[in-house]
Amino acid sequence: MRITDSTPKADGFYMPSELAEHRCTYLLWPERNDNWRAGAKPAQAAFKQVVQTIAKYEPVVLGVNKSQYAHVLEMNMPNVQVVEISNDDSWIRDTGATFVVDGLGHMRAVDWAFNGYGGLVNGIYFPWDQDDLIASKMCGIEGVDRYRLSNFVLEGGSVHSDGEGTILVTEETLLDPGRNPDMTKEQIEETLKEYLGAEKILWIPQGIYMDEDTNGHVDNICQWVAPAKVVLAWEDEENDPQHARSQAAYDYLSSETDAKGRPIEIVKIHVPNVVTITQEESDGVDIVEGTFPRNEGDRLPASYINYYNCNGAVILPTFDDPHDQEAIDTLQSLFPDKVIEPIYAREILLGGGNIHCITQQVPRP
Amino acid sequence: MRITDSTPKADGFYMPSELAEHRCTYLLWPERNDNWRAGAKPAQAAFKQVVQTIAKYEPVVLGVNKSQYAHVLEMNMPNVQVVEISNDDSWIRDTGATFVVDGLGHMRAVDWAFNGYGGLVNGIYFPWDQDDLIASKMCGIEGVDRYRLSNFVLEGGSVHSDGEGTILVTEETLLDPGRNPDMTKEQIEETLKEYLGAEKILWIPQGIYMDEDTNGHVDNICQWVAPAKVVLAWEDEENDPQHARSQAAYDYLSSETDAKGRPIEIVKIHVPNVVTITQEESDGVDIVEGTFPRNEGDRLPASYINYYNCNGAVILPTFDDPHDQEAIDTLQSLFPDKVIEPIYAREILLGGGNIHCITQQVPRP
Repeated sequence: MRITDSTPKADGFYMPSELAEHRCTYLLWPERNDNWRAGAKPAQAAFKQVVQTIAKYEPVVLGVNKSQYAHVLEMNMPNVQVVEISNDDSWIRDTGATFVVDGLGHMRAVDWAFNGYGGLVNGIYFPWDQDDLIASKMCGIEGVDRYRLSNFVLEGGSVHSDGEGTILVTEETLLDPGRNPDMTKEQIEETLKEYLGAEKILWIPQGIYMDEDTNGHVDNICQWVAPAKVVLAWEDEENDPQHARSQAAYDYLSSETDAKGRPIEIVKIHVPNVVTITQEESDGVDIVEGTFPRNEGDRLPASYINYYNCNGAVILPTFDDPHDQEAIDTLQSLFPDKVIEPIYAREILLGGGNIHCITQQVPRP
Repeated sequence: MRITDSTPKADGFYMPSELAEHRCTYLLWPERNDNWRAGAKPAQAAFKQVVQTIAKYEPVVLGVNKSQYAHVLEMNMPNVQVVEISNDDSWIRDTGATFVVDGLGHMRAVDWAFNGYGGLVNGIYFPWDQDDLIASKMCGIEGVDRYRLSNFVLEGGSVHSDGEGTILVTEETLLDPGRNPDMTKEQIEETLKEYLGAEKILWIPQGIYMDEDTNGHVDNICQWVAPAKVVLAWEDEENDPQHARSQAAYDYLSSETDAKGRPIEIVKIHVPNVVTITQEESDGVDIVEGTFPRNEGDRLPASYINYYNCNGAVILPTFDDPHDQEAIDTLQSLFPDKVIEPIYAREILLGGGNIHCITQQVPRP
């Protein structure tokens, strides 16, 4: 049911850390030919690998459009619940429900408005009506009540909760004119606190360079690895536009404390070398008016930070790059009890995001 | 997941009685204008009443096509989980999964082939591809494994399990040439025993007169009220074609015992007076080639036996008929601890079935 006249914070609910125990992970099956090359088949193979890898650690619920349902069902993947969820694209991190818990065994969800990453101002596809219904469908399947904000636009990939009252965001996304242009920064901050059950918002200035699909989502540049401790996408080369962005994030976080007054420890993970779209890759995408183009030579927002924490493992995008091993080693040292599962993720990146963007956890309340 | 190379019986699973405790009830939202009059709005109002009545007693999962999803979501009904399930029509008794349990806390499901009540021989609509996927979608949502019989056609409304090894069926449905014409009665019987975990099949000759949509499903003429005890639709008037059908069922059941060797006690419930389609009702249905017509004057298979057992209540179709009260009283005496919930069900009957046909229980394993 939709809960009216209350908020998660007022009801004692908050967004747990992604590192807290999960009941399951949701994904959506990629399909649209104007974003995923070659009939989406290469992307589907990569998504399938992500699904099967996560399913080794926790149940996966895989939402599929009617058109691909019978095909996906036939894969008969262990520990994967195939369900029907109509969608405009497969970024369930951004379109899915944000689950909140009360620490007493109860779970609810926040169902934000979604407008295709910027609506008619700078959205990347049209329409987005099915995407805006995904969160409610997850709530229907899970049997949890939801707080619906029909007038506040937010994608899940633009917030990271430490589960202890502090939320990481970027100004680049949350102050983007395509989201909530009539709200002040203070009003946005208050809304986040109220619906994520948080005390403090940390505003990193910008996300990854050329992350134009999402306008710089925080989940591609910075992620909690523990309370008061983050990993940050880093670029040593001062002439690369990413350097100034990473440095600004570093300087900001170094000057801040979390909701409990603790300074933020920052672990750098160097980004891979520049990844650009090939002609073959570009040619494989249907050109459609109103959909964000994938042109030959365009730089992609490649980053290791877009990994996903599931129970017992880190699902890490890799790029067949000299920096892959450093990312693996750093995360292994940060999570000595977890398995690091590297997955070559170029085909996901080509669609505009990565492994974190295509996953959404349901906590075990 | 799909289970291959085994059967429920071999694995120790059986279909529990509908009277056993439920986790929830599934329904589907009616929509097709070539079966439901006036844009399906009168039927939707009746279905909504059934949904809300059952939801007083146990959770309801309501499957909806994409086209009606946002509207149904907006109803915000307590204890109702709205999910997306594409469907060709709303008879989830017939298209849904048949859940089986092992008595040790485990649950699985049987996913029979569905062919629109007779396929290209005498089916009542075309295509039926989405209907045939409904059972798998229920399994996806519930997270249970399924036995898929892609080569054995069965609708759930054509079998009634007592949960103790005996299954009620009708010859009229199961031997219909539109289902499994290449199988002998003995082969069909063996398949039922294997997939319902049963020992004995009781073959009532025919169902309700003019139940042409389903070719005489058992769930409109006879239902278990306890092991070795049934209610039977009855017609006193010997000149009415229903009389001979009811008498034949009575005679057959009187001569039989169940799987445990017990004689069958039979309680009669008189059918309502003849119900026929009005001109206004017929005119409200879109005429489409290949869909079973709803003509003015056609007699409908009205019967009180098509009630539904949920936790703590009996959801009973009524017809604004002099026999309504007798049906209520009989069922109340049979279930003294349950609430009898009469619902005026003409609009459901006009589509070809009734309350039992539009519900499917998920046991609590």
